[in-house]
Amino acid sequence: MTSAGDPASTVNPERFHVYDTTLRDGAQQEGLSLSVHDKLAIAGHLDELGVGFIEGGWPGAVPKDTEFFRRARTELDLSSATLAAFGSTRRAGVRAVDDEQVRALLDAETPVVTLVAKSHAGHVERALRTTLDENLAMIGDTVSFLVGEGRRVFVDAEHFFDGHRLNPEYAVGAVRAAAQAGAEVVVLCDTNGGMLPDDVRSVVEAVAAADGVRLGMHAHNDTGCAVANSLAAVDAGATHVQGTVNGTGERTGNADLITVIANLQLKRGRRVVPDEALPESTRIAHAVSEVTNIVPYSRQPYVGASAFAHKAGLHASAIKVDPDLYQHTDPALVGNDMRLLVSDMAGRASVELKSRELGYDVSGDRELVTRLTQRVKEREAAGYTFEAADASFELLLRAELDGSPVTFFDVESWRVITESRPGGDAVSEATVKLRAGGERAVVTGEGNGPVNALDHALRTAIGALYPEISKLELIDFRVRILDAAHGTDATTRVLVEMTDGVTSWETVGVGANVIEASWEALVDAVSYGLLRQGANGVEPVAS
Amino acid sequence: MTSAGDPASTVNPERFHVYDTTLRDGAQQEGLSLSVHDKLAIAGHLDELGVGFIEGGWPGAVPKDTEFFRRARTELDLSSATLAAFGSTRRAGVRAVDDEQVRALLDAETPVVTLVAKSHAGHVERALRTTLDENLAMIGDTVSFLVGEGRRVFVDAEHFFDGHRLNPEYAVGAVRAAAQAGAEVVVLCDTNGGMLPDDVRSVVEAVAAADGVRLGMHAHNDTGCAVANSLAAVDAGATHVQGTVNGTGERTGNADLITVIANLQLKRGRRVVPDEALPESTRIAHAVSEVTNIVPYSRQPYVGASAFAHKAGLHASAIKVDPDLYQHTDPALVGNDMRLLVSDMAGRASVELKSRELGYDVSGDRELVTRLTQRVKEREAAGYTFEAADASFELLLRAELDGSPVTFFDVESWRVITESRPGGDAVSEATVKLRAGGERAVVTGEGNGPVNALDHALRTAIGALYPEISKLELIDFRVRILDAAHGTDATTRVLVEMTDGVTSWETVGVGANVIEASWEALVDAVSYGLLRQGANGVEPVAS
Repeated sequence: MTSAGDPASTVNPERFHVYDTTLRDGAQQEGLSLSVHDKLAIAGHLDELGVGFIEGGWPGAVPKDTEFFRRARTELDLSSATLAAFGSTRRAGVRAVDDEQVRALLDAETPVVTLVAKSHAGHVERALRTTLDENLAMIGDTVSFLVGEGRRVFVDAEHFFDGHRLNPEYAVGAVRAAAQAGAEVVVLCDTNGGMLPDDVRSVVEAVAAADGVRLGMHAHNDTGCAVANSLAAVDAGATHVQGTVNGTGERTGNADLITVIANLQLKRGRRVVPDEALPESTRIAHAVSEVTNIVPYSRQPYVGASAFAHKAGLHASAIKVDPDLYQHTDPALVGNDMRLLVSDMAGRASVELKSRELGYDVSGDRELVTRLTQRVKEREAAGYTFEAADASFELLLRAELDGSPVTFFDVESWRVITESRPGGDAVSEATVKLRAGGERAVVTGEGNGPVNALDHALRTAIGALYPEISKLELIDFRVRILDAAHGTDATTRVLVEMTDGVTSWETVGVGANVIEASWEALVDAVSYGLLRQGANGVEPVAS
Repeated sequence: MTSAGDPASTVNPERFHVYDTTLRDGAQQEGLSLSVHDKLAIAGHLDELGVGFIEGGWPGAVPKDTEFFRRARTELDLSSATLAAFGSTRRAGVRAVDDEQVRALLDAETPVVTLVAKSHAGHVERALRTTLDENLAMIGDTVSFLVGEGRRVFVDAEHFFDGHRLNPEYAVGAVRAAAQAGAEVVVLCDTNGGMLPDDVRSVVEAVAAADGVRLGMHAHNDTGCAVANSLAAVDAGATHVQGTVNGTGERTGNADLITVIANLQLKRGRRVVPDEALPESTRIAHAVSEVTNIVPYSRQPYVGASAFAHKAGLHASAIKVDPDLYQHTDPALVGNDMRLLVSDMAGRASVELKSRELGYDVSGDRELVTRLTQRVKEREAAGYTFEAADASFELLLRAELDGSPVTFFDVESWRVITESRPGGDAVSEATVKLRAGGERAVVTGEGNGPVNALDHALRTAIGALYPEISKLELIDFRVRILDAAHGTDATTRVLVEMTDGVTSWETVGVGANVIEASWEALVDAVSYGLLRQGANGVEPVAS
């Protein structure tokens, strides 16, 4: 079994419960499908975040989850979190000990079992189709049975707030039934997500006055208030908060646990995760995004790529003076960075600051900055974006500094043929004709797509002259149709990410033809990569 | 000039100010670049939403904005909103009448001018580098000058909450200076976005007690509480709320005006936009997304594609009973729909309900549902997603119903060649060999990209046999690399959207080769389109 409360931690995860349900409720998000392997990887990240509890899934009901808990016993080594199995109260008219689903919860062998229980009289009668009394018995019986088997039991009071509005006595009765049977926490769930913060506070205060059991909050974002609702519940006395990393979840999602933690820790001075964990938030949020295969939301509070990205020329001048004037907190506290965006809205100040960020002090050369700012605006008008393509910006800057573009090779022409294969995957073949190092090369490369084939052809063509190219690897490739209303007859922007094994960089390409745009971004990426290798003696060689 | 208060409207936009700054503050979002044409189009949508005020931009400071206001005079016909020009208080040491930027505000000829003013003592001294008294004079002078010129003046008190924390007397002094000089509204701005709702409420209450001027709120989402902060301010007495459609804006964005409006109207019973406007929200939110060229956020409250999408098999059974049991509001009130997602988490219930949603009653055929559910799970394991590709799901369903796939043509092979052109855009050429209607066709089509060329070739190949294809148009094409860590050596999923001018549908294709995946999605989209046309007598013809 997994243990809780690493003695080296400066925070006792039992005092305030940070309860993560990314693997269970988070998995309900549209488009999300997690394998057992994914879940184990995410659990590791959650543990690094310092959450107190990880809800792994619904064993018995979801086969992948039964498997998860089985493998977790030997493959998951949690240092800070406690594993919880989620399930439901027993069926109506059946004893807890005889209920298969309840047995499956025991078989998961977790220290904690979290039961979802009906607390909304309307749901009991219309969805469960049983009596109000039987439902209370279902709660009491299942809780005491599991407590008797040595489990810590948490109870999720489903649809609690709607239920409390309809029939407050019954809703509170459900809380009491759980508490009296030995439940350690009763979590008030805004299952449909329709609550606003003030009403959450009133209800939590009312329940806290009616029963002394530890209360928790489970919020959804249907009114855009999941985080605020969670904070309101805590203000009203809740000491257990449920959420998911990156707010993934059904419909509009669950409360973003990272935002809740950061707000509690940085704004309310309430230590809920270990000191060393919060600065890992950005890295962890992105790691979980990768495993869940969801594109990170750039506007995500605290950890989003844009969270501390400043654009307006107005702000850029002020930031030079004092970053605190324009930031609500120090991005380093959550592991994020301040970024200055270069765009057509940016003035000279942004271009100067961006250049400095990349290691070039251009403040002494007014003319250069003017030319560079002009080039940026022109390119952006054509569809380029340098906000996500620092390497392309740097190549532009170098071109202005050196008086000529950075070229390692001179491309004559390229051509890609993609053909269907009967009964198998299509194959792409690219032929590139270029001059480099005084020689002309005509090379053909194969690949599983046009860009892949062009990449291979290019490597073969210049690999002998620039052996450093073998260190470069294409790791991401994003296509964006700029005039979506025109379908495939539109301008395309392609962003490419490349790495040399040490760091990675992004470049941009734009064109009416998507393959052309991809080629442009690829050539820039390779050029930038070779430029970086220049520190090892490779000089740009004109053809 | 534009007028406000359409007599047919049931809401007086002057009683409660819904103030939209999508075109000004919203435009600060990373990656966003709006042309004047875009701005005029968005303004039209904002007017349909029923907002009271549209902040068009910063004339003088941003050339595109000067142009916007000029063209708005003749090209924008607003029936509900009033146009506002944004700018700043005069420079220190210069008279308002002599300040170019202030003159530019007048030249925009808008009924309303909104001035950003410093209210944070620290900013006055360190960013503006002037005295506290001069700043108050800057506010008073500029406001009275513009009022004297016949403008309604609103004042945005920048960094108000941080300023009030540091030096509350000065911050309130700035509010008073604006009010005394004739400002109609003083908007308290959480410029850095670091506030939490309770603190917003306390500060707004304190300011309301100190001065009777109409107060407004301008929130950002850095703590994930922009919407909640806006509501808290309203609870404390503010009667003017600023935000942007879809919450676009710098860093983490502004308060999502659509969410704020829906919450006020549906949860607080406060009529802030005309009755007929709220059900247009989803359409308008998506229209603005298209113009801003930002991919709509599926988890967006109220109007997101996933906002009322239900996945868990658990919920799907309950929804059959009573939709209100699982939805916090009726999606139709905001123009959205309830959707049932088919996924490997879905059980038979979801597949049945989805089929019914598409018009097929399969509840009587257990075996069919079993087979179909199995096919869905298999495909999803291979990378297909039916959640965003209803038409592909329907084709799968038809194949199970009919016992054989839906085919209008039998593809023998295809090939695409893309070649660079010196000094111009690359050209793509696709050759398709297929059989249809007993005939074999070998057709070549050209295009500005591989998929575009394949689309043209296909149309030519089957256009004589199926003239209906001329009604079909490809309108969107999205590429997603499924194993991003492997760069271009990854599985690709392509989603295609096609229309027949009446409705539109989406299909999915998956493959190691992106062109192959695109071809699969394209063939499905055309097949589905021809199937729809079947009502007009076109039968699927096997080759």
